[in-house]
Amino acid sequence: MLGWEHLTVNSLGHLAIGGRDTLALAEEYGTPLFVMSEEAIRENCRLYRRSIERFYGGNGLAAYASKAFCCKAICRMVQEEGLGLDVVSAGELYTAKAADFPMDKVIFHGSNKTAEELTMALEYGVGRIVADNLTELRTLDALAAAKGTTAPVMLRVKPGIDAHTHEFIRTGQIDSKFGFALETGEALAAVKLALGSKNLRLIGLHCHIGSQIFEIDPFCLAVKVMLEFMGLICRETGAVLGELNLGGGFGIRYIAENDPVAYDRYMEKVAAVVRDCCKKLGFPAPFLLLEPGRSIVGAAGITLYQVGSVKTIPGIRTYVSVDGGMGDNPRYALYQADYTFLAAARAGEPKTQTVTVAGKYCESGDLLGENVSLQEVAPGEILAVLATGAYNYSMASNYNRNPRPPVVLVGEKGDRVIIRRESLEDLIRNDSD
Amino acid sequence: MLGWEHLTVNSLGHLAIGGRDTLALAEEYGTPLFVMSEEAIRENCRLYRRSIERFYGGNGLAAYASKAFCCKAICRMVQEEGLGLDVVSAGELYTAKAADFPMDKVIFHGSNKTAEELTMALEYGVGRIVADNLTELRTLDALAAAKGTTAPVMLRVKPGIDAHTHEFIRTGQIDSKFGFALETGEALAAVKLALGSKNLRLIGLHCHIGSQIFEIDPFCLAVKVMLEFMGLICRETGAVLGELNLGGGFGIRYIAENDPVAYDRYMEKVAAVVRDCCKKLGFPAPFLLLEPGRSIVGAAGITLYQVGSVKTIPGIRTYVSVDGGMGDNPRYALYQADYTFLAAARAGEPKTQTVTVAGKYCESGDLLGENVSLQEVAPGEILAVLATGAYNYSMASNYNRNPRPPVVLVGEKGDRVIIRRESLEDLIRNDSD
Repeated sequence: MLGWEHLTVNSLGHLAIGGRDTLALAEEYGTPLFVMSEEAIRENCRLYRRSIERFYGGNGLAAYASKAFCCKAICRMVQEEGLGLDVVSAGELYTAKAADFPMDKVIFHGSNKTAEELTMALEYGVGRIVADNLTELRTLDALAAAKGTTAPVMLRVKPGIDAHTHEFIRTGQIDSKFGFALETGEALAAVKLALGSKNLRLIGLHCHIGSQIFEIDPFCLAVKVMLEFMGLICRETGAVLGELNLGGGFGIRYIAENDPVAYDRYMEKVAAVVRDCCKKLGFPAPFLLLEPGRSIVGAAGITLYQVGSVKTIPGIRTYVSVDGGMGDNPRYALYQADYTFLAAARAGEPKTQTVTVAGKYCESGDLLGENVSLQEVAPGEILAVLATGAYNYSMASNYNRNPRPPVVLVGEKGDRVIIRRESLEDLIRNDSD
Repeated sequence: MLGWEHLTVNSLGHLAIGGRDTLALAEEYGTPLFVMSEEAIRENCRLYRRSIERFYGGNGLAAYASKAFCCKAICRMVQEEGLGLDVVSAGELYTAKAADFPMDKVIFHGSNKTAEELTMALEYGVGRIVADNLTELRTLDALAAAKGTTAPVMLRVKPGIDAHTHEFIRTGQIDSKFGFALETGEALAAVKLALGSKNLRLIGLHCHIGSQIFEIDPFCLAVKVMLEFMGLICRETGAVLGELNLGGGFGIRYIAENDPVAYDRYMEKVAAVVRDCCKKLGFPAPFLLLEPGRSIVGAAGITLYQVGSVKTIPGIRTYVSVDGGMGDNPRYALYQADYTFLAAARAGEPKTQTVTVAGKYCESGDLLGENVSLQEVAPGEILAVLATGAYNYSMASNYNRNPRPPVVLVGEKGDRVIIRRESLEDLIRNDSD
């Protein structure tokens, strides 16, 4: 009824996640609180895995993009579900290592990896390092040479496709900080450099055309562009690259109006385009990599806040203030991102008012939503914000020196804290005396 | 020459802060790195203190707004310079306590303080609690009653003045999550509630009309509105309130075009308006509080980054990538805030190119500036971003699980780390096993 399978209204009329009453969760763990459904996360992982098996003969791997939400527990779950892991920093790689994630299934991304990060990736034995630019490729070449090893490399290519999403999260077009441009010959030069170095082993190509995309066509177009480029590489150098990484960008439901593509439909169409193109171009269909992040964890998580004041400014608006805000969810301040709000104690009742949800941070821009629909709520009650599992905790700050909330995972075996609440002591831990 | 007194170009042509070579600092402490000038911070504190003495007979107190940048060392410096401290959370209050800041000079703010925070403020003996709304005022009343104590209260009032600044940082107008509205009678009702409670001691009123303001007139107008309201309170209730808190909002120089008001000119004008109004209204001039944050630390700090790749997209733009970004400075992504950029090795040379400065975060919106002027820079060199002392470290996140940079204070007695660099271990400290 609510539009997300793991979210229900229980017999008390309360919002429940994975069957657990959110009011009881707020009572037990305090607020603000992130809660995630283990079943929802695992089911999303399985959707990707199954669709690769069903439509592409299992000749591929979905790697969870941990930038969406990274901690040891999520690395372990993803590994148990047979996915790979996409990391973008020393910190994410360190987390993967601490969770004993198999390094051959790790993909290391980033538009500006430092020499320290590249060194760490080589020492850890990361399976694929996706080089973004010539400076980095040369640094990696030199580091691998110095270590007497061979770096497994993919190249990030800009296919020049604009997936018509928000300006901030478009990354495939030519005016982007990410990757090698096709049009300018830069990508081909990078391929030749990689193929010509004995310290680099060129595995394949990567592209990423944007975020929160609801159509399949842009992905199909990207596949064609990338495979044609692989054909050109073959003709120019004789090399047949074995892997194509299509990145992520699959949209999720933040609000009722969002209508995400079923992942198996995506894979069915994309697989058909890949096979068709490869047949025409005359080379074997490559091993496919996918990098879902938001679509694994985004809808699986919610945030629970306690309402403080409710301030009605006659004729203007009603502010509902909560005990978190832009520190735990900066996405409204950054992108005016849409969210769904529910009064947790009466989640099934009609929404009777239009309010602005404000945070506790000392800044006017600290809002979580403007003119959103909500049931009645009174000070002291619990407000739920849905689909906050991605890019909320991971972007959280200690602005105003507020501690970051904990993350609780609700599963069949009960619930458990996977990231502890920060203490006041944590906040001053690195302050010198 | 550079436009900030503590920033110079040394004999090697390098940018220096407080006389220290920035290339040497980057070499010693690594990048990204925040560096702050102790002399600049202390001089800014003294400007406020002196101007209150000179133009208002010392009948006031400037309280540093620690939301701009909070750590134990800054609390200590501010205290040594005789300023008070404005805190907005349990975390900032805890930091002040850890730095032995005198609690009678602490002002506790916030639009949605929790009961835990109000309790902490009462237990610590905070000098002034600025109540934002009726829910909070009633909570505070009950908490003080339960403790058998009297809470020292000021009331945050919206004077209805728009200081014509950026939409995100306007807080004085009626459509704001902050404070009691004058027009609706809400503010007067709050005054009566506070005066009528034996557990609350109403000290005075507070207002804050915005941020990064370059004119004095809006402040003078706010003073008039607030004093007239104090006159009304006197007529209605007989109470003469002793204190008026004018908040902060004083603009600083981020780029050459910014032309901040000299603080003593501000105080001279405002003091005259206060005296004039009070004479007309027939009550004594109140003790004045000011809450400068950005103007104490903003221009005093800089960020040093190492340049990774320099990517020129012919006919479109040149991306200069650095080893930090929206994680340590989210202000461009949030507000498209302007900054001044310098190639630290040739800070005195003419700026010969227009570039876009991109960060290392896996997001297209991770930029620090678009189409900004810069000297030539090559990969491996140091890029300085000026006036990053406020709302950079304080808003920093671990997005992409990147560790937050350290903060080094450069002073007459040498330089010292005041906040240590986060370690990789810090990043997983709260992850459960």
